[in-house]
Order: sequence, then structure tokens, then C-alpha cells
Amino acid sequence: MNAPEFVHVTYLAHGKPGTDWQKKAQGIAVGLTVGSWTDLPEARKESMQKHLGHVVAAEEIGGGADGQSAALLTIAYPTINFTPDVPALLTSVFGKLSMDGQIRLLDLQLPERFRQQFPGPKYGIDGIRQQLGVQDRPLLMSIFKSVIGYDIDALAEAFYQQALGGVDLVKDDEIFFDETYAPFEQRIEACRKAVERASEQTGKHTLYAANLTGPVTEIFDKAKRAVDAGASALLLNVLTYGYDVLHRLAADRAITVPIMAHPALAGAMYPSAQYGIAAPVLLGKLMRAAGADFVLYPSAYGSVALERAETLKIASALREEQSGVHRSFPVPSAGIHPGLVPFLYEDLGNDQIINAGGGIHGHPQGAAAGGRAFGAAIEAVVAGRTLTEAAETSEELRTALTLWGNPSTR
Amino acid sequence: MNAPEFVHVTYLAHGKPGTDWQKKAQGIAVGLTVGSWTDLPEARKESMQKHLGHVVAAEEIGGGADGQSAALLTIAYPTINFTPDVPALLTSVFGKLSMDGQIRLLDLQLPERFRQQFPGPKYGIDGIRQQLGVQDRPLLMSIFKSVIGYDIDALAEAFYQQALGGVDLVKDDEIFFDETYAPFEQRIEACRKAVERASEQTGKHTLYAANLTGPVTEIFDKAKRAVDAGASALLLNVLTYGYDVLHRLAADRAITVPIMAHPALAGAMYPSAQYGIAAPVLLGKLMRAAGADFVLYPSAYGSVALERAETLKIASALREEQSGVHRSFPVPSAGIHPGLVPFLYEDLGNDQIINAGGGIHGHPQGAAAGGRAFGAAIEAVVAGRTLTEAAETSEELRTALTLWGNPSTR
Ligand SMILES: [Mg+2]
Ligand SMILES: [Mg+2]
Repeated sequence: MNAPEFVHVTYLAHGKPGTDWQKKAQGIAVGLTVGSWTDLPEARKESMQKHLGHVVAAEEIGGGADGQSAALLTIAYPTINFTPDVPALLTSVFGKLSMDGQIRLLDLQLPERFRQQFPGPKYGIDGIRQQLGVQDRPLLMSIFKSVIGYDIDALAEAFYQQALGGVDLVKDDEIFFDETYAPFEQRIEACRKAVERASEQTGKHTLYAANLTGPVTEIFDKAKRAVDAGASALLLNVLTYGYDVLHRLAADRAITVPIMAHPALAGAMYPSAQYGIAAPVLLGKLMRAAGADFVLYPSAYGSVALERAETLKIASALREEQSGVHRSFPVPSAGIHPGLVPFLYEDLGNDQIINAGGGIHGHPQGAAAGGRAFGAAIEAVVAGRTLTEAAETSEELRTALTLWGNPSTR
Repeated sequence: MNAPEFVHVTYLAHGKPGTDWQKKAQGIAVGLTVGSWTDLPEARKESMQKHLGHVVAAEEIGGGADGQSAALLTIAYPTINFTPDVPALLTSVFGKLSMDGQIRLLDLQLPERFRQQFPGPKYGIDGIRQQLGVQDRPLLMSIFKSVIGYDIDALAEAFYQQALGGVDLVKDDEIFFDETYAPFEQRIEACRKAVERASEQTGKHTLYAANLTGPVTEIFDKAKRAVDAGASALLLNVLTYGYDVLHRLAADRAITVPIMAHPALAGAMYPSAQYGIAAPVLLGKLMRAAGADFVLYPSAYGSVALERAETLKIASALREEQSGVHRSFPVPSAGIHPGLVPFLYEDLGNDQIINAGGGIHGHPQGAAAGGRAFGAAIEAVVAGRTLTEAAETSEELRTALTLWGNPSTR
């Protein structure tokens, strides 16, 4: 019989000055596990002991919002109370509790044996690098932009232009549901052909992450059809579909491509100081456990920004060593242009994806030039050169820096 | 060809004083639909016109948080841009946007033809009343409490006691995942027998909403097995599984029982004034469209409270007349005891579920007496009598009012 394991969950709670935080924490530990404890007969306590939650810490901290008292509460929940899946986990530790006053889920530690029952990424950073044959630099990804209403031919041509610029991956826009103009499998086949066409010129391979949408009852079959049609990756709006869809896709051996998690809807949960779920849990730990090979999240530098410290914690959750679990690629996103590459590289080094939409498509010389401008920027930072130096030999990068700026020189 | 339809979405946005809200709204309307507009060639504009979002309103309002400017922005999104499911809808109208500054999804209007492609409740208020043969009073529901670690026999006995008290429904606790001690189908069969046993004494029928859990890949089959085993309702943690799971359960004709939506995790999204999704959308409109026959939400009066105005909006979204769509039962919950029944009745009248856990199980004379105390309270308010009057002829109610209070007399 194995020793009992506990999921440790840390909450930030706000309340009236003078709140008895130890009592509050105790109420959570009992209320979300066995329900009540002091009223139980002694015989019953014995058999229920293993289901009981424990208070690990309940410390008042300074800086509560609106003059309130704030506290960090850490509760240990026995893993035998739930099944190893995110719906069970979140429902237990932040289901009813999320509605009970000012409380925010700040951190969550999954113990070893419990975590091993989650799939984790199927390929992870190493597997994807192997597929692409690219080891010692950040990867470059381009986002299909403004695709609503485009037909297969127009998409294939746009794909070809992106691939020609040397990007390692192209991803669908997450709001691309259009199966009238550009049916899913036809789109995948057309993009696969565009990869081959570009590859003849560039000698490089490009992965295509197709947006997996539609009824949850059909999505697993659809993923397999995508693989059969030659898809090289799948994009999933994990938070609108639920983490368990990601989990079951990752656990399915027939789905032989990496899965990219889009953070759509995450902003409904992470930005408040008093409520919700912290981004490193929402987009870091849970995404990796449930099986995301790549996770997009707002970078600290672009148009849709997240605090730098939070982005570093997300990346750390995705990449830290965990025995037997592949590492996920962090994909800091939104408003990325070549001038921002030095900041991203300084923060995360090689094991990340540089991801751009407008920063590639909006290049004055077109999407292929946009990709090459990024390629020159990436090559420069890896070699320890400045973008200004690199721009001397790359006209595309020079144009990009002129248009969007080169803030690392400031 | 049908006239184009639009989903109207209203956001509450905060920003620096002097923000150009018309421009911000225009950016959303274009950015979340066709991506860019002014740069498009004229010929392309013609074919893309039908995909373009429109600004319906962008009005600065007073009372912005932290001295900021606040505005209500209403955008009309063409329904042809997305498929008729909640993941597509939410990803489109609040996916990336949720992360783009201080923005909150406040309201959402689904146009007629688009809404008709959602399942809506399979039975709704009228269908459930017909199953129970109860027309002219609020229904009474009891929550299985402290069930973790209980075996089938203990659960069946607890069920029997609850049914004996005259409750119309019993629901599982939403944190009940335990299939070791109390396997799903055995639990359903044992509770079905307990219903029959109690019914011989009370002459009443009791529905049992079993918590539907486990892998999303198996949940639809599991729901059908539950029906075969004699389940009379299913409980689903909709927000941790995703609305589409509810949608497909509701749309599946083989699942011939009503579905109860639990609000677990909703507090990660609705409480902030600047971020997230308003409760009437999250727990009202989207739950009904996706097919919830019953929706639990925090009442304005109990231990886990929501503002009264918000609870009324949720109930209104669940019950307002919509052609061809059944009405859903509102289930104001958390910390409900008999003394609160007059408030709930004043707010919502007959078409609601009075739902109690501790208020039934914590009754000094046991769960059956706890149910009878509620029954007496409900009978009283429907007849226009006070609880104090009713307590004269109900010892159980008298005990409950003494223990938990009778605030309507204040
Ligand atoms: Mg996008
Ligand atoms: Mg509960």
C-alpha cells in the first residue's frame, strides 16, 4: 500500500480585518473533503481520516486590497478523494470555493504518483525539435491571420508565403471555425502540399497546427481524420472545451501529432488580484499536466501584455524538469515583432517559440520577408549579436526595425 | 437566403481617462472578425462585408474603478463567423479579447435562428413538473452531504431518509467522484430502490441527480448507462467540463433524463468588477442555451452569496419566454434553511427549486424531519401564511426556525 499523497493548493484570500485565517483554512480543509469532522462519531473518524484535508499554512500577509486583511492559505487535499483529471481536481479544490468570498487560486502542487496519471505532453520540446531537425535556437511560428471567408486556394497560397519565409510552424487563427469555405481536411491537405512546395525552395520543414473545433462528441474522431489527412499539429481552445478534451487527445496514441494549447478565455480568470486562477496554474501547470506540447500566452512585451514575473512562472511550469514528463514549449504571444526578439531570448533562451501574426504578415515586403526578418533576428540573438548589427546584412530585418522599432538599443 | 443574423455582445471596459471608446470598439469589431478592414482591396471588401463585425454602441459611463474611464461597448458579430456551439461563440467574442486589458463580458444576445441551433433544456420546468406530478409550488431538493468514503448501503440509507422527508429531488454533492466505495451504476440502482421504499410511505416520487464524472471520451456512454440503470437526472460540473459537454448531452435523444448544471468554478469568472463574465451570462443564458434543465447558483441570502440583482437576472435568463425553448429551473443555493424560504418565494415564486444541504441534514431530528420542515415552510408561503403561523402546526419547522432563525419576521 502506497503512502497517501496530497495535492497542495495555495489560495490568496481577502477578508475583513481581524479574520481568523486559521479557522477559515480549517473550514476549507474539512468542508471540501469530508464535509464535517467534529460531529463525526469516533469510529467513523477512523475510517474517514484518510479523506480529510489538512491546513498546511494560514498566514496573514500585508498589502490586502481595499484595506482588507489578506492571507495565504495552503491546504493539502488527499488525492484519493478525486480521480486524476482536471475537472475532478478543479471542481474539488476550487469549485464551490471559487464562489465563497474573495478567494484566488494562486498555486497548485501535484504530487508525483498522482501527476503520473496525467498524460503530459506526447512529444514536448525534444520531440518537436527532433521532428523539425532544429536544435539550437528558438523556433519561429507564424499565425494565419484574417482567414475568415478565405477559400482553400487563398489559404494554401498564404501558407506557402509564410513557409517560404523559413518559419518552423504555422498555426491557424483560433477564431477560425470556417468549414464552408475551407473544410478541415481539405485545408490540411492543401497546406501539406504548400509545405512541400516551399520545402523544395527552403530545404526546411514546416509544421501546420490546424484549429480543432466542432462538437466534443466528434472532436476525437476529427483529430484522427486530421492526422490521416497529414496534419502535423493540432490547435485547441483548451479553456472553452475544458482541459479534459486536451487530456484525452494527449492520452490517445492514435493521435500522433503534437497539441498546441490556445489561451482563449484565460483573461476571464487570471487578471483580477482577488479572484480567479493565477496564470502560471491556468496556462502553466494544468496545461502541461493535461498534455499541451505548446502553450500560447500573452508575452510581457506585446500588445496584450501579462506581467513579466507571471510569464516567467508560466514558462517555468512548462519547462522545469519533472521525472518522466516531457517539457512543453512556451509560446509568448500577441504583438510580437522582430525588435522584441532580444527580450524574449533574454527571458527564455532557446527553448521557446517566437510567434507572430501581424509582425510577419504586416511586413512591407510581404509575409515571406516578414519571416526572414524574424529569422535574422533569431540568428543574431543566438550568436550574441545585436539586431542593429544583424540588420546590416538583412534588408528585411532593417525594414522591420524601422517600421516597428528596435527597443533593445534604447 | 436568410437575412444575416448577429450576436450582440456588451462589454464593460475600463481604461485611461480620455480613451477613445469608439475606436476601441471598432478595433474589437474588426479585429475579432475579418482581422483588418481599411487595408483590404475593394473587391475583397465586397466579399468580406458579410463577415465584418459592427459597433452597435460605445458609451462612456460614470463610476469607473480606480478613477479610470469606463465604457459599455456593444458589438454585433455575424453568426456566419462561428458554428452554433459555446466554444466557438466564447472563443470568438471573448477568447483573445478577455486578455486584452480591463474588459468584462456583461451581456450577450443570441438571435433567433442561431439560438434555435442550440439544444436548450430537454424537459425544462414543465417537463419536470409533469414527471413529478407537482404543479403549484416550488420544488424541494436535498443535497447528499459528506458522502466521500461512504459505501452503497450507507448512501442508500441516507437517500431513504431524505426521500422520507418529502423532498422532490436529491442531488449528489458535486465533489463526489468516488467510484471505489460507491460505483456509479450500483449507486443509481440502490438509490432507485430507496426511492421506491420511501414512496410506499410518502406516496411521492423523488428524482435522483447522479454526478456525471470521468473522462469526456466516456461520459456520453456513461450517461446512457446511468439512464439504463434507472437514473432520473444527471448532475454535471458544466464549467470544468466545458459547455459543449452539456450541449451534446442535451442534444442526445438517448439520454432521457433532465440535466442539472452545477456552477463549480463560476466564481473564478464572475465576481470581479473589471474582468470575467457576468453571472447572468455564465449561469443564465449560456446554461439554458446549452441545455441545462436546472441551474444551481449562489442565492442572495445564504452562506455563499451573490448580489440579489444578479440572481434575479440569472433566473430571468433561465425562465423568460423564448419561442420553442423550454424554461430552466433556477436553483438558488448554499446555506439555505427554512427561514429563508419567504425571501426565495418573494423573489421567484413557484418556478424554482428550494435546495438545501446542511439545512436538511443538520436538522436536530434528522434529515427526514429537515425535509418536512422545508415542506411546511413551502406550503405556508404558497398559501400566503407566515412561517410563524406554520410553525404552530409543524414541530419540525419550529425546531428549524429556532436553530437557524426566521429572518422574515424581522
Ligand atoms: Mg489569434
Ligand atoms: Mg456541493
